[in-house]
Amino acid sequence: MYLSKLFLPILKENPAEAKIKSHQLMLRVGMIKQSSSGIYSWLPLGLRIMKKIENIVREEQNNIGAQELLMPTIQSADIWKESGRYDDYGEEMLRIKDRQNREMLYGPTNEELITEIFRASIKSYKSLPQSLYHIQWKFRDELRPRFGVMRCREFLMKDAYTFDLSDEDAVKSYNKMYFAYLKTFKRMGLTAIPMAADTGPIGGNLSHEFVILAETGESKIYADKRIFEIDTRNFNLDDSSLEKMRNEFETYYAVTDDKFNKEDFDKKVLQENRLITKGIEVGHIFYFGDKYSKPLNASVDLQGGKKISVKMGSYGIGVSRLVAAIIEAKFNNNIMKWPLSVSPYEVAIIPMISKNDNSNLIKSQKIYKELIKHNIDVLLDDTDENISAKIKKFNLIGIPYQIIIGQKSEGNIFEFKEIDKESQNLSIDKVVQKLTKEKSLI
Amino acid sequence: MYLSKLFLPILKENPAEAKIKSHQLMLRVGMIKQSSSGIYSWLPLGLRIMKKIENIVREEQNNIGAQELLMPTIQSADIWKESGRYDDYGEEMLRIKDRQNREMLYGPTNEELITEIFRASIKSYKSLPQSLYHIQWKFRDELRPRFGVMRCREFLMKDAYTFDLSDEDAVKSYNKMYFAYLKTFKRMGLTAIPMAADTGPIGGNLSHEFVILAETGESKIYADKRIFEIDTRNFNLDDSSLEKMRNEFETYYAVTDDKFNKEDFDKKVLQENRLITKGIEVGHIFYFGDKYSKPLNASVDLQGGKKISVKMGSYGIGVSRLVAAIIEAKFNNNIMKWPLSVSPYEVAIIPMISKNDNSNLIKSQKIYKELIKHNIDVLLDDTDENISAKIKKFNLIGIPYQIIIGQKSEGNIFEFKEIDKESQNLSIDKVVQKLTKEKSLI
Repeated sequence: MYLSKLFLPILKENPAEAKIKSHQLMLRVGMIKQSSSGIYSWLPLGLRIMKKIENIVREEQNNIGAQELLMPTIQSADIWKESGRYDDYGEEMLRIKDRQNREMLYGPTNEELITEIFRASIKSYKSLPQSLYHIQWKFRDELRPRFGVMRCREFLMKDAYTFDLSDEDAVKSYNKMYFAYLKTFKRMGLTAIPMAADTGPIGGNLSHEFVILAETGESKIYADKRIFEIDTRNFNLDDSSLEKMRNEFETYYAVTDDKFNKEDFDKKVLQENRLITKGIEVGHIFYFGDKYSKPLNASVDLQGGKKISVKMGSYGIGVSRLVAAIIEAKFNNNIMKWPLSVSPYEVAIIPMISKNDNSNLIKSQKIYKELIKHNIDVLLDDTDENISAKIKKFNLIGIPYQIIIGQKSEGNIFEFKEIDKESQNLSIDKVVQKLTKEKSLI
Repeated sequence: MYLSKLFLPILKENPAEAKIKSHQLMLRVGMIKQSSSGIYSWLPLGLRIMKKIENIVREEQNNIGAQELLMPTIQSADIWKESGRYDDYGEEMLRIKDRQNREMLYGPTNEELITEIFRASIKSYKSLPQSLYHIQWKFRDELRPRFGVMRCREFLMKDAYTFDLSDEDAVKSYNKMYFAYLKTFKRMGLTAIPMAADTGPIGGNLSHEFVILAETGESKIYADKRIFEIDTRNFNLDDSSLEKMRNEFETYYAVTDDKFNKEDFDKKVLQENRLITKGIEVGHIFYFGDKYSKPLNASVDLQGGKKISVKMGSYGIGVSRLVAAIIEAKFNNNIMKWPLSVSPYEVAIIPMISKNDNSNLIKSQKIYKELIKHNIDVLLDDTDENISAKIKKFNLIGIPYQIIIGQKSEGNIFEFKEIDKESQNLSIDKVVQKLTKEKSLI
C-alpha cells in the first residue's frame, strides 16, 4: 500500500479528550474514530490490527477443537426471563422494543442463547463434549464509557461455551481453554497471567481473569511474581499435561481485588516475591456447572435413559480491547512497536523525497515490488513530507521494521531498522530473508 | 473434520414453517437456527459458507482499490436528523433509547455515518477519489420477516461508499464497482445481471440492481435475454474499458418492476428475446451526487480555495442473503451442489461402515490424512449410518466432490464422484491432482 492512498487521518497533536496512552495513540494515528459516546468506527489501520488479533484468537480456538458459529447481536428477552437474569442484569443491558412491541435486547453475553441452541440440537451423551465459540459485537450500556475502546459500549468479543457430562470432564474442558488462552496472548507478544477471580453476574465457583500488567489497568492484582516465569511450552493438549500446568500455576498466589485476602497473601508469598500492581483484563473464563442448563432444560440422555443437565463453562476474550491493551504494553517514550503477528503492515519503506528529486521514490518503488513479490506486506511513504516528520510518524504507527532511504543511501544497500534496535545496512535480499524468517516464527 | 465431531444438527424432515427451498435446506442440514422472528444464529456449516462468500466479496473490493473499515451497528439519531432521513425512514428502523435517554438506532444503512467520517478526515481535493467499504450486521425491522435469511431482520451486508470531485469521476467509480460486482457474483457461480432500478430511500438518479434469476425471487424483471451472453472477461479495470462494458450492457433492455415501461419494452426488445421473470436481488448500487454531502457539509478544498461538496455513491451486497440465493440457484431435485469457491468443505469421504467391520473406516482415515496433507479441506463421515442414508444426507449438504468407499472398494482405487456427474474410479493421487487443479481455478 502507498501511504498517499491509505485512508489514514493522522492528527498533529494528541487529542485532549484521551486520558490514557492507547486511546491517545489510536485517535492520533487514525485507527479509530468516535461516532457517539463509547461507540467507535474502526478505520483501516485499526481494523487491520483488530482482524489479525481476531484471527489469532480464532486459530487457537480451532486448535483445541472448538467450533465456530455466530449468534446474532439482537436477542429476545424471553430466554433471559427463563434463566432469571433479565431483571438482574440492570441498566448495562441495552433493552429494545421492536415495532411489534416485543421486548428485545442487544446481547451483553450469550450464555442463554447458546444454551438454547444446545438444547435444541444435542440429545445424547454420545455427542459430548461440545465446545462452541463465536466472535461477535456486544453492547454494554456503560454509565461512563471511557479510555477509548478499553471501556466502550459496543465491543468485539470472542466467547466460547463448553458442554460436558460431569464436573470432572468439564474441568478438562476448562483446562484446554486455559491453555489456549495462554497461547493466544503469547502469540500477540503479551504475558497474560491467570488470576483467580470472582464470577460476578456470570455465576459459578471457578473462574480466572487473564491479566496483563499495566499501570493504566482497572484491575488491581496481587501475585507471587514467580508466576510470570512459568514456561507454558512445557505443556501440551494432553489432559494430564494440562492438569500439571494448572497445578503449577496454582502453586503461586495470584488473585484479583475481589479475591484478595491479606492474611493469605502475607502467609503464602515471601516479601521479595510480592507483586501488588494494576492490570488489564484481556480474558475471563468461568465454570458454572448447571447454572444455565438446569433452568433452561439443557439435558442429555444417559445410556440407561436417565437425563442429566449438562455442565457448562464460558470463556471470553476482549478482541477489540486487546488492540488497546497491546498499545498499553508496547507504547513507550512516544514509540510504538507492534508485535509482528498483529502489526498492520510488516515493514515500512520511508524514503526522503524532495520536490525536485524523486530518485529515492523510484528506488523505494523497486524495493516495494520486490517485497510484494515475496508476500511481504509493506507500506510505502510516497509523500514529500520531510524525513524527520516521517520517522516520527512511523514511530507512532508502530510497524516494527523500517527501510529508510535517506540522503546517503547508495547502491543496493539500505538502512534497515527494527524499532528499538540499532540500524543495519542490508541488501534487499537480506531484508527479504530476515522478514521471511521472522514471519515464519509467528 | 470428522462428521461425528461436527456440530451439525440435521433434521429428518423439511421443517413445515419454511416455504422456499433455501429456507428448508438451511434449517434441514443445520446451517442456521432461528432465535427469534427474523433473527438467526449461524451454525458451523452455514457460517463456513457465509465466511467464504464474505471473503470473495472482500477480495474483489480490495481488487478495485476500495479500503475496508468498520462502522458500528449502533448509531446516534443526531446524524440522521442532519441528513433529514430520521423521520423518513419509518418503522423499519430499529429505534433505541439508551440509559441516558439518548435516541440511538441500529444502522439499516450507513450513508450518514460514512459521510461524517469522510468530512472529519478528508479536506483536500488531492485526497480524492476515495472508496471505503465495510462488512457489518444491519437491522431492518421487517413487519413480516420471511423466507429465512432471504428476508430477515438482522443480516450481514457489505456496503461501499465512493467520494469523487466531479460527476464524471464519480461515474468512473461507479463503473469500477459495477465491474467488481460482476466478478464477485461470477466467482460464486452466479450470473447476476445489472438491471436499471429505482433508487428508493437511498436517493439519486442512477442505480442498478444485480439480480439472479429464481422463481422464488421477489423482484419482477423484464429483460432482453441476450444480456446474459455478455462476457465480462472482455473487459478490465481501465476506465475506457469499463465505459465500453457499461455501454454494452446498456444496449439491452433490463429493468426491475419500478422502471418497467411496456411500450419501451415492446419497442426495444424483439418478441423472441423477451424475458419476463422473477429474480433475487443480491446487490444494489446507487449514484446520488451530493444528496448527503451537501446537508452534512462534506466538502473538499479545490486548488483555488473554493469548497465543493463531494459526489458520492453507495454500493451494497447482501452477504448473508447470498447464502440463500446460491441455494435457490443450485438446489434442484433434492440435490444441492455448492460451487467449490463457497463450499463448506472441498470433498466428502463417505465410507460404508458396519458395526462389525471397520476396514472401510481405516481406509477412509488414510485418505483423509493424505488429503489434509495436500491442504484439501475434507469432511469424513465416520458414523455407522447406512450408506444410502449417508449419500442422501451428503446430497443435501452439497459438498461438490465425494469419495465413496463402498462394499466393492478394493485396493487403492476409489469411487470419486462429482455431484451431478458420473462416478470415476481413481487413485488417491489422481483425486489430489484433480482437486488441487479445481481449487487453483477458483
